[in-house]
Amino acid sequence: MKFYYTPGTISLAVHIALEMSAADYQAIAIDFSTQEQRSDEFLALNPLGRVPALVTEDGVLTEAPAILNYLAAEYPQAQFATAQDNFLKAKIDSFNSYMCSTVHVAHAHLWRGGGWGDSSSAKDAMAQKVPENMTDCFNLIENSWLQGPWVQGEKFSSSDLYLFVVSRWLSGDSVDLLQFENVNAHQQKMLQLPEVQALLKGLYA
Amino acid sequence: MKFYYTPGTISLAVHIALEMSAADYQAIAIDFSTQEQRSDEFLALNPLGRVPALVTEDGVLTEAPAILNYLAAEYPQAQFATAQDNFLKAKIDSFNSYMCSTVHVAHAHLWRGGGWGDSSSAKDAMAQKVPENMTDCFNLIENSWLQGPWVQGEKFSSSDLYLFVVSRWLSGDSVDLLQFENVNAHQQKMLQLPEVQALLKGLYA
Repeated sequence: MKFYYTPGTISLAVHIALEMSAADYQAIAIDFSTQEQRSDEFLALNPLGRVPALVTEDGVLTEAPAILNYLAAEYPQAQFATAQDNFLKAKIDSFNSYMCSTVHVAHAHLWRGGGWGDSSSAKDAMAQKVPENMTDCFNLIENSWLQGPWVQGEKFSSSDLYLFVVSRWLSGDSVDLLQFENVNAHQQKMLQLPEVQALLKGLYA
Repeated sequence: MKFYYTPGTISLAVHIALEMSAADYQAIAIDFSTQEQRSDEFLALNPLGRVPALVTEDGVLTEAPAILNYLAAEYPQAQFATAQDNFLKAKIDSFNSYMCSTVHVAHAHLWRGGGWGDSSSAKDAMAQKVPENMTDCFNLIENSWLQGPWVQGEKFSSSDLYLFVVSRWLSGDSVDLLQFENVNAHQQKMLQLPEVQALLKGLYA
């Protein structure tokens, strides 16, 4: 498989999953600083111009929640894979959907607000509200979603990969992670994992 | 099961799935006009104050993509359920993730832009950009995502429920559905389904 990634993005969640799967893949960096994600070659793979993208023998997969579910199904022995438990799977989907459609979107208004409003005053207003929105999201994660020690309780899952990556964005959003005791404990546990350490010291350094 | 819904929202996609599943459930309307979604009773079910929410014997499920996957797994005989095909499932997840995190979000800037920016000029700028963004999204759906006749090709899936509901929002977003020939043909096919007809004449009339 070929895996397209960019440091600083949600691709890290899928990248950890690939490492935990012991999957046979080649990692290919997409350089946002040169707008490589808008190149004809990359747009042919993902017309949205976003990472992650995974080229499988059956075709290209995009969108982090989808690739995470795919890897969990293809590599059932992986640490984040899910047993045949429809309700647990649905809880994982629910959290990951919240992360992609609400929390990631809240964060994205800091640096790509222009996608939702043209005027510079609108972009400023959107950027200004990001700390408040990310704080609201993480209060909900801290008090409602995160069961502890992992997001779904005792079972490690792709929800943990998602939370780990997005919680690393808080400082850039001017939000102090340390106010969220459970989320911070979760992040510390994640940082112990060898696959996480290897990527943070390597391709995502 | 108890299913919480509101006409005009994405709950319709899950509602059609429940009907197609022949599931045993009770439908309970949440009245946004009286802010019922912010009531203590409803926030106890879904702290996000959003529909849909499905109360199962195992607990509460929220987020449309998650509930759709749950119903597909629990009711394998339903028309939208998925065979044991990891790649097809991932393509369904990918499309539904795009719909919830990009298209639904693009639409939401019309009427709840205040969630991402406080000033009235920012809200105006966001509302102004909605037709352009929804047109961009639907050009991509028309030319890239929608394989035809159904989103995933010959196999009907929950992606069709998602597309059907969101494409019904276009006119309210000042975007003409008829410019998207394939999406319009898809919508006409969806309107033939008895479960869709029953809901549109009934609870969603």
